[in-house]
Amino acid sequence: MAKQDRAIRTRNQILESMASLFNEVGYDAATIAALVERTGLTRGALYFHFASKEDIARAVLDEAVTREGLREQAFKVQEWVDLGLLLAYRVPREPILHAAIRLSVDPKARRLFGTRWPDWVAVGEGFLTEAKQRGELLPHADPAVVSRTVVGSWTGVQLVSEAMSEDLDLAEEISVLYQLVLPNVVTPTVLARIDSSPYRAERLLKEQSRTSAVE
Amino acid sequence: MAKQDRAIRTRNQILESMASLFNEVGYDAATIAALVERTGLTRGALYFHFASKEDIARAVLDEAVTREGLREQAFKVQEWVDLGLLLAYRVPREPILHAAIRLSVDPKARRLFGTRWPDWVAVGEGFLTEAKQRGELLPHADPAVVSRTVVGSWTGVQLVSEAMSEDLDLAEEISVLYQLVLPNVVTPTVLARIDSSPYRAERLLKEQSRTSAVE
Repeated sequence: MAKQDRAIRTRNQILESMASLFNEVGYDAATIAALVERTGLTRGALYFHFASKEDIARAVLDEAVTREGLREQAFKVQEWVDLGLLLAYRVPREPILHAAIRLSVDPKARRLFGTRWPDWVAVGEGFLTEAKQRGELLPHADPAVVSRTVVGSWTGVQLVSEAMSEDLDLAEEISVLYQLVLPNVVTPTVLARIDSSPYRAERLLKEQSRTSAVE
Repeated sequence: MAKQDRAIRTRNQILESMASLFNEVGYDAATIAALVERTGLTRGALYFHFASKEDIARAVLDEAVTREGLREQAFKVQEWVDLGLLLAYRVPREPILHAAIRLSVDPKARRLFGTRWPDWVAVGEGFLTEAKQRGELLPHADPAVVSRTVVGSWTGVQLVSEAMSEDLDLAEEISVLYQLVLPNVVTPTVLARIDSSPYRAERLLKEQSRTSAVE
């Protein structure tokens, strides 16, 4: 068991270090040699976990579509908002999630592995379709279109906010995005009960870790 | 004069070919050797116009913040919307504009040259500030915040729409973005007179070419 724990830790260390390299220098320039230098692991140890750089990139992208911290809420549209708020809180703190975005906008990596945006759009559409069936959305709001537009907007707000010279907080920027979009998607009575504040994600994640500690 | 025309044409040809290379293989992999092969020009001819690949990338980014097709309108907020609609029409048709986005999301190119997003945010903020002074915006709409959020959203909608498997039209996707955001930014009476249709940009550009033909 201890041996297995160590193996999982090493695998995570490889993923995180390679993700940081992708973030810093881009997919093409991130090499196994640089990874060896950064982790201090032998090539043998690396190749025990991953066959190649491509293999690591795929594993990074596999982590991208995550529901960690998500809990059932009174409104489905709240769960849809929570998905985006949780990711906004985590991306600046977790190199692997950040690298998944980086790989999606890199021409070579995108050609090799595609992106996880279609998956995100499908997940969002699922929540919004349920929300619509429950009468939470305005009649003209099309779940597929709203989901796709917000996945795009979310991504661009992240990219632009990290390029601006001011010190912008992604959780706040994404909160503003939802405030701009929600009144045109959600019925007014539901809107009044939706929490899109930048502090919500941190609270959700703390609740989750408390619950798992009890279990 | 004819000689000067030829020089301008050659410069444009270099810019467009290098822009296409940036789009296809990314900044790092786009080389002067590939450019020579693609254009059929000699290295001498290239270096007459640009000192280096970096120099070409800078020239590409200099073309990014463009007001081509923009005309004075009854509402300042219409001019702000027109900026985004015109760009959505042009980006899929003009490799140089497309490459400016590509370079902005490339980690190495971004480190070398920065991005033009802060310029776009400033331009948008200018239009929205004037719109606000004229009473076109809702009281809570902050020109700086709205401009930044929409520049981000615009960029991400472009990136995600070209990565989706469906054949999405950027002008339509951006039109949807404005329809989602405008009701929460613009007063209802002004909103009723704002055109954010996907066909508007093409019409504006045709009007412009007619006018310049007359001038």
